[in-house]
Amino acid sequence: MKDINEYSLTQAVKDSFKTEPDSRFEQLLHGLIDHLHDFTREHQLTHEEWMRVLMFLYDCGKISTPERHEFILLSDVLGFSALVDMVNSRGGATEGSNLGPFYLDNAPRKPLGADLSDERDGVCILVHGKVTDSLHNPLPGAIVDTWQADAAGTYPIQEQEQGQDKMDLRGVFEADENGRYWYTTVLPKPYTVPYDGPVGELLRAGKRHAWRPAHLHYIVRHPGMNSITTEVFFENMDYIDNDAVFGVRKSLIAKVKPAKKADIPYETQKTPDAVVEFDFVLAPES
Amino acid sequence: MKDINEYSLTQAVKDSFKTEPDSRFEQLLHGLIDHLHDFTREHQLTHEEWMRVLMFLYDCGKISTPERHEFILLSDVLGFSALVDMVNSRGGATEGSNLGPFYLDNAPRKPLGADLSDERDGVCILVHGKVTDSLHNPLPGAIVDTWQADAAGTYPIQEQEQGQDKMDLRGVFEADENGRYWYTTVLPKPYTVPYDGPVGELLRAGKRHAWRPAHLHYIVRHPGMNSITTEVFFENMDYIDNDAVFGVRKSLIAKVKPAKKADIPYETQKTPDAVVEFDFVLAPES
Repeated sequence: MKDINEYSLTQAVKDSFKTEPDSRFEQLLHGLIDHLHDFTREHQLTHEEWMRVLMFLYDCGKISTPERHEFILLSDVLGFSALVDMVNSRGGATEGSNLGPFYLDNAPRKPLGADLSDERDGVCILVHGKVTDSLHNPLPGAIVDTWQADAAGTYPIQEQEQGQDKMDLRGVFEADENGRYWYTTVLPKPYTVPYDGPVGELLRAGKRHAWRPAHLHYIVRHPGMNSITTEVFFENMDYIDNDAVFGVRKSLIAKVKPAKKADIPYETQKTPDAVVEFDFVLAPES
Repeated sequence: MKDINEYSLTQAVKDSFKTEPDSRFEQLLHGLIDHLHDFTREHQLTHEEWMRVLMFLYDCGKISTPERHEFILLSDVLGFSALVDMVNSRGGATEGSNLGPFYLDNAPRKPLGADLSDERDGVCILVHGKVTDSLHNPLPGAIVDTWQADAAGTYPIQEQEQGQDKMDLRGVFEADENGRYWYTTVLPKPYTVPYDGPVGELLRAGKRHAWRPAHLHYIVRHPGMNSITTEVFFENMDYIDNDAVFGVRKSLIAKVKPAKKADIPYETQKTPDAVVEFDFVLAPES
């Protein structure tokens, strides 16, 4: 038999998989094997360190449920999720950002101008803007699907046991004939990602906090265009410079301006205290 | 705020951890972040591929129990465990190999010459050799801790529900005044690693089998010397060239020779059909 050493092993492992040459599966599998093996050789990983990594993954698995995705959280705090968003952002289109764990794909359709706050306390903001292509042509009928935390930094879906409706603070809007969308809601507050599990231990070991800056979540769609999943943040607000999950991009930060009558060219169900304007740009499907 | 892009993100993630400069924790964390981010950039990982990786880890977590270590198995089939063994093998010492999932740290002490087969069917082999340092000086009193599968490729610990004693086919021996050990047992057979979980799916996707060549497990210890965890394999036996977990090294393959009276300078409880000789070499603690 041909002997295997710490250098020739990597090729032997790759060769053991009879994958379709140059298939995407082969590229990703080989890439992952190369990087994990390089990491092990470069750092001369000890058995104790190796076992600690594996037990960390085991612990992440144990705390995970269909509602608690510790591996997604791990990916988030290591910037892996943000990087996937970045490498998939299309030139000219609005930058992508975290989907997060709280999206529901059957949120209620609401008319333009509706209020999403469901009588919650806090600053009432008008959120408005246009959905266009990268040449500024409006995209009438674009779908703007949004969800968010309340003014205490909590998503209603997290407090269903306290009687909250998981569909609160969510809405799906259809942009008007000029590609415009508008609605009122409560200004969300920062919140922490879950830190009672292995990922929380990692954050503590690295003296990191678990806070995310306040944000609104969006998925924006239009036929023939690439959908974008992104978040809108607010200028100068807490944690904007050190989001625990690296979701903030400069292009995704909006100003919160006091509402003056002149700022509000739209009919709204509720009278806002402040106004946030953000335009979405979609790129065509390739 | 300073904007972050797909290249500057990696440093930002590393900087977010306030780790002790150049500490081992920092080196490993930064190394892992660098490699995962490089992997993502090099292959422009899509959201679907990213989610598939995370759901694969989630599934590994769900099937794992204290007795079923899917993450260790994953590490094994990707050659990561073998590589950790290789980078930690000391020059001059016996090469390390997989610990595997079936080690028990309280196996029974047995006298030299004892039989471990507990009346199991199969080829009775005499296993013998010396434990020395790298200058061939015997190490009297060295501890040779061994465990193995039976002639059907099964570990008794896997069949406790069928009435098997989990301590069968295990023994802890103390080398004699010349560093020699010897015992009889049954020649083990190949077996498969568990392939009913996510790792099995990965093997099938890569058209790989789940077989390991027959082997004997060892941990060998002596005061003042580095312990070794390793496996001994048998020349020309099935799967010796394509172990599913990459445990085989050329230096760990022993011959199985027919027993002739002259080959057996030892007293044994049972008369062997064949003889396997293997010497262990330990390096001093650094």
